[in-house]
Amino acid sequence: MVLGIRPPQGPALVGLVRMLPSIAIYAFSFVFLGIYWNSHHHLFQAARRVNGRILWANLHFLFWLSLMPLAAVWLGENYAAPVPTAVYGALMLMAGVASRLLLRAIVSAEGPDSAIAKAVGRDRKGLVSVLFCLFGVGLALVQPWAADALFVLVAAMWFVPDLRMEKALHTALPENA
Amino acid sequence: MVLGIRPPQGPALVGLVRMLPSIAIYAFSFVFLGIYWNSHHHLFQAARRVNGRILWANLHFLFWLSLMPLAAVWLGENYAAPVPTAVYGALMLMAGVASRLLLRAIVSAEGPDSAIAKAVGRDRKGLVSVLFCLFGVGLALVQPWAADALFVLVAAMWFVPDLRMEKALHTALPENA
Amino acid sequence: MVLGIRPPQGPALVGLVRMLPSIAIYAFSFVFLGIYWNSHHHLFQAARRVNGRILWANLHFLFWLSLMPLAAVWLGENYAAPVPTAVYGALMLMAGVASRLLLRAIVSAEGPDSAIAKAVGRDRKGLVSVLFCLFGVGLALVQPWAADALFVLVAAMWFVPDLRMEKALHTALPENA
Amino acid sequence: MVLGIRPPQGPALVGLVRMLPSIAIYAFSFVFLGIYWNSHHHLFQAARRVNGRILWANLHFLFWLSLMPLAAVWLGENYAAPVPTAVYGALMLMAGVASRLLLRAIVSAEGPDSAIAKAVGRDRKGLVSVLFCLFGVGLALVQPWAADALFVLVAAMWFVPDLRMEKALHTALPENA
Repeated sequence: MVLGIRPPQGPALVGLVRMLPSIAIYAFSFVFLGIYWNSHHHLFQAARRVNGRILWANLHFLFWLSLMPLAAVWLGENYAAPVPTAVYGALMLMAGVASRLLLRAIVSAEGPDSAIAKAVGRDRKGLVSVLFCLFGVGLALVQPWAADALFVLVAAMWFVPDLRMEKALHTALPENA
Repeated sequence: MVLGIRPPQGPALVGLVRMLPSIAIYAFSFVFLGIYWNSHHHLFQAARRVNGRILWANLHFLFWLSLMPLAAVWLGENYAAPVPTAVYGALMLMAGVASRLLLRAIVSAEGPDSAIAKAVGRDRKGLVSVLFCLFGVGLALVQPWAADALFVLVAAMWFVPDLRMEKALHTALPENA
Repeated sequence: MVLGIRPPQGPALVGLVRMLPSIAIYAFSFVFLGIYWNSHHHLFQAARRVNGRILWANLHFLFWLSLMPLAAVWLGENYAAPVPTAVYGALMLMAGVASRLLLRAIVSAEGPDSAIAKAVGRDRKGLVSVLFCLFGVGLALVQPWAADALFVLVAAMWFVPDLRMEKALHTALPENA
Repeated sequence: MVLGIRPPQGPALVGLVRMLPSIAIYAFSFVFLGIYWNSHHHLFQAARRVNGRILWANLHFLFWLSLMPLAAVWLGENYAAPVPTAVYGALMLMAGVASRLLLRAIVSAEGPDSAIAKAVGRDRKGLVSVLFCLFGVGLALVQPWAADALFVLVAAMWFVPDLRMEKALHTALPENA
């Protein structure tokens, strides 16, 4: 992902300083992708069945994530600009929507009494994230910095790994007892 | 794959609008690669033997897919132009041909009575795709938009995951019974 | 990683000669990443439990490594310049700190009597590396070449694969006896 | 690897024609890497023990391969020029040398009576390849096209997958009987 960021021209400190927004947005994107990476690690470990619907739900989810580096580079070069901020937030939003669809596909394959279904529950936090991102996209067009703060809040909600699921699965699956 | 796409210069909305063809072609390529990814997921899970011919048939197939990002970026910057459209279609065509060769190599290693051989059958849909792409390449040189429509049709034929194979394999292999 | 390096313009030998610093720094980075790759190969093979803390410690570690290609390209185009040298050293420093945090997270999950805990011990070499890099970052701002020599020394300390750990684990785990 | 190749400017056929050398060299590099990929597939499947020496021999081998895309892009933009041709050949040479060192490290870990040791034998073809590449590097500086022909010959020697090893291993290892 870092490949899209261009190193500064020349060796001066000012070049590095000018890159700081790009690096901050890269770091945020790294954490954002890491949140999904870690929670999917738990998810796919616990999933017993994979069908066509899950494969496509997963690809749909990856599609939005795959656009993130492009949006991050654009935003890094134009930080605090309304349109790039809104586009970045829209990708976060779509990733959240796609993640919910993926969860639903997995739960549907595992059955309503499976450990995953119980661990996921109603996924209220996922719904709240999606609503916050939706609001953030609109906000970005008038107050980019306020939208940034909202996006950071969404990531912070998840940064503590999904302990709820980790615990529920550890209780449900005997191998970890 | 998205790395080849350059973000817009400057923060204006017009830059994003100008990128829409590139993003549309990226999305189409993503779906196209996803179709192969999903069907190969089934295929390699069911394959019991790997030999030199299969390895090379697979690399030959990957060669054509690996050129797709380059063609997608070129087409994205020159959408509706005859030559880039024809080149993109030619890669779809070659991927289809290579996929048929790969299927044949796997079926030949598994034997005519294997679950894979029965699931694949005569692969008529694969043959139709190849013929459509062949026609599309010629069409692109005179009517690029009509060729685009044909290429979308080919992808749509496969978008519903290869349920036929999934079902046949699930029936044939006891572990999924 | 090599993708960030641009090939010379034109076919002349002088273009190749001008690239030598970039290639030397690329080679050094390759060895540096290889040291971590090999030691983590041992580590994760021996680790029995993975929890949220380990996943995040690993991502934190990978974050600093992921910035290395960018710093390597920048330094390659401005070798012996103080700021790029200091930035490169700072990434080595942060990778070392993050690696120690990762080690601690794994040891904490495995327990103080595990083979890993005994093999890692107090990780004095890790601490020395971190201190050397810290000093190197400051040195880079006044004597870049001296800092380079120090960074090479740090890598050389590890280049001989972590035989101590390899041996300890081979003794502790019966499968290798 | 294809990412380093830039798509043509503008939609004209002439842009595509100008890219043909780049694509030809890309295709050759793809086959070259494929040869190693396939033979290592056999090798690592049969290897029972991995130690520090093997890990470093493998990284050393990958280092030279990782420089190939850069050399391929440079040669594609300056085909038939002496220095880029010689550099490309030098990477083929170093990959061959590194591959022999890797083979020796694996054979040494497995022991002289192992299936791998017998399958590899004295690796005369490997030695011949290295000598041909060495000669080709010198030849490139005076007759680039003749060197190209020699490099194609070396690849052709291996293109037929290493059936000798495949057969020997299949005979030696009961699971494939």
